[in-house]
This record gives sequence, C-alpha cells and structure tokens, in this order.
Amino acid sequence: VAERLDHRATPVAQYRESYIIAQDEEGLVIVDQHAAHERVLFERYLAEAERNEVEVQKLLFPVTVELPPHEYLLVEKEAEELRRLGFLLEPFGGTTVRMDGVPAVTSGVDPESLLRELLGEAGRASSAASDVEALRRKLVTTAACRAAIKVNHALNRESMQALLDDLFATVSPSTCPHGRPLLFRLPLDELERAFDRR
Amino acid sequence: VAERLDHRATPVAQYRESYIIAQDEEGLVIVDQHAAHERVLFERYLAEAERNEVEVQKLLFPVTVELPPHEYLLVEKEAEELRRLGFLLEPFGGTTVRMDGVPAVTSGVDPESLLRELLGEAGRASSAASDVEALRRKLVTTAACRAAIKVNHALNRESMQALLDDLFATVSPSTCPHGRPLLFRLPLDELERAFDRR
Repeated sequence: VAERLDHRATPVAQYRESYIIAQDEEGLVIVDQHAAHERVLFERYLAEAERNEVEVQKLLFPVTVELPPHEYLLVEKEAEELRRLGFLLEPFGGTTVRMDGVPAVTSGVDPESLLRELLGEAGRASSAASDVEALRRKLVTTAACRAAIKVNHALNRESMQALLDDLFATVSPSTCPHGRPLLFRLPLDELERAFDRR
Repeated sequence: VAERLDHRATPVAQYRESYIIAQDEEGLVIVDQHAAHERVLFERYLAEAERNEVEVQKLLFPVTVELPPHEYLLVEKEAEELRRLGFLLEPFGGTTVRMDGVPAVTSGVDPESLLRELLGEAGRASSAASDVEALRRKLVTTAACRAAIKVNHALNRESMQALLDDLFATVSPSTCPHGRPLLFRLPLDELERAFDRR
C-alpha cells in the first residue's frame, strides 16, 4: 500500500507504551513505535551514507576494543565503508582498535557492542557476497534497529507527533527496514460497518 | 460472544467524540458510546419497570400535550403500563393530557416529543400484537435511545470509565437494545501478528 507523502496523522494515545494509536482522514492507524523509528533512522542514515555526509558524534572518552583477528582484518578491509558510516577507528596495537567517534544517529547505543554487532554482520555478509551496497544496507539496518526507541517506552504527545511526521515523510512508511509491517489500519468506514452504522 | 461480569476495561482515548478506545487484558476494545449507553439505560430502566419501581422525575412545570384522538385512546388503554414506565399523565379535557412526571432516566429529553414518539411506537405495536412484555421492551428501547449520550459528544476520562464499568455490568454488553454490535475487539495477539511480532 503506497502512502501519500502529504499524509498527516495525529496521535490519539499510546497503547502498552509500545504502539501509537493515531488518526488520519481515513480512520485509525496503529503504529509499531520501534519499527517506525527504525524506518525513520534507516532512511536518514542510509541517505547520509550515500552522500558520504554521515554526522559523526565524537566520543568524549575514546573506547578501545580488542577484536578477534578475523574481525580486526575486517576493520582493515572495510575501513573506507566504516568511515563512510561514521565510525572513526584507529589501530591501537595488536588486534585492538580505538573508537574516536560513532554515527550521531546511534548516540545512546553502547559503542563497543554496536561495533562488535556490525562486524559480526559484516563478517557474515562478506563471506556471502561482497556487494558494498548490500553490506551498507545491512549495517545501516542493524544500526537503526539498535538506535531506535524500544517497545515498553512511554512517549509523550509531542514525541508521538514528531515520530508520525518523520515516518510519513519516509519513502516506505508501511514497513520496517527488515520488511515487517509497521502500520495497522482500521478505517472509519470499516468501524462503522462493524457497528452497523452504515 | 459472552462477556464476563468481572470484566474491567479502562479508557485509552475517545475517537471522533463518538467511540471509546479502551483496553482490557485481551487487547483493545472500541466501544460505540451511544449504543453502549443505550444498553446501560435499557437494562436499568427495564429492570425498574419490571419491579414497578421506576424512578419518576416530577416536572417543575407540567406540560400539556394535545394528542390525536387515537393516541388519546391509547393513553387511556395503556394507562397502567405508562404509569409503570414512569409517565405521570392526567386528563386535561378533550384529547389533551397533562404530563406531571417522566421517568428519571429520560431527564434531559424533551417530555412532549418523547411522549409523542412512544405513543407512535405503542400504536404500531398494539395494532400488531398486544403482548405487554413486548410493548414494554419496545417503549423502554425507544426511551433509552432518546436518553442515551449521542455521538459527537466529548467525554472526559471519568465519564468514559463510568460508562465502561456500567456497560460491563450489564447482562448483554456486546449489543445495543436494537441488536446492533457495540463492541469492536482488536486483541493484542492479533495486533502482534499483524506486525509480525509473533
């Protein structure tokens, strides 16, 4: 289902601190808040990476991470792509790297565990195919998932409105980057039929 | 679908000033506020009538109503039932009656138009069948419909909670007295399946 770009939905309430109940001119829309935020972060981050304009968050306290040898080799091999994605990594002796910066989109996520997770992804990806586009999408998907607001997280009305506005400004507001549906529609005319009101 | 008597639903929000979005342990419940209030008033009013204990609201300013002859005859014929239903009517000369009281459940409804509507119903009912039980249910249904809160009517959280509590204390909380569905359920597990969360 294609969503219009001029779509405007307003929050009605949050349900179980996990779903945003919203309304638009068609009826009720229930939005999976985590998946919606994933979609927003994914598109923003991917677009920045494609333009090579990822905003970097410098770490006040750089983090040193000792890696398994095959992952250290991966850092060397994918150095350009990791830098493009906003990871500032420097050799620190042996198989250790120093992290000086991370993509701003992931601020709030533990840098070390994020790096380890992305290198794990990259390891599986590069043994399968060495398509830089596919690798980028995979890493961006994982980073967006880690950085997105979680379920069981209270949102106030302003945060819900901002998330809905960001979501309906994306290219594909109906699915998360993993391809799962993130919108559930309950059109007013369907509701009225259920109540024998039409 | 039978609803449990110990059911407790809490309001989440009002939608279009017409529907109460609520939640219970099963998931979301959307309630047609007018139909729900009809159900509540219907059961309360019918039970009072069956016990001959209808609470009467005395009119501060009695209303005189000139009736068509056949409806005046109906008032005489159904005098006992009308009194049982809480209508205090006295002959006022010719085909005019004076209304001294109405059922308290209908306070807020215009007494004259309510009387005319009920006599219209009674006229059609008595020409069809003369079952006093059926007539009573018909008149109680109509009065409950007239007295119930309307759609496009804002309710605060306390009013929504009170209506939900009253509704789930009724014998048949799933349908209005006319037999139309008044609850729309969206169980949490159905929602989670829609989002591929299970």
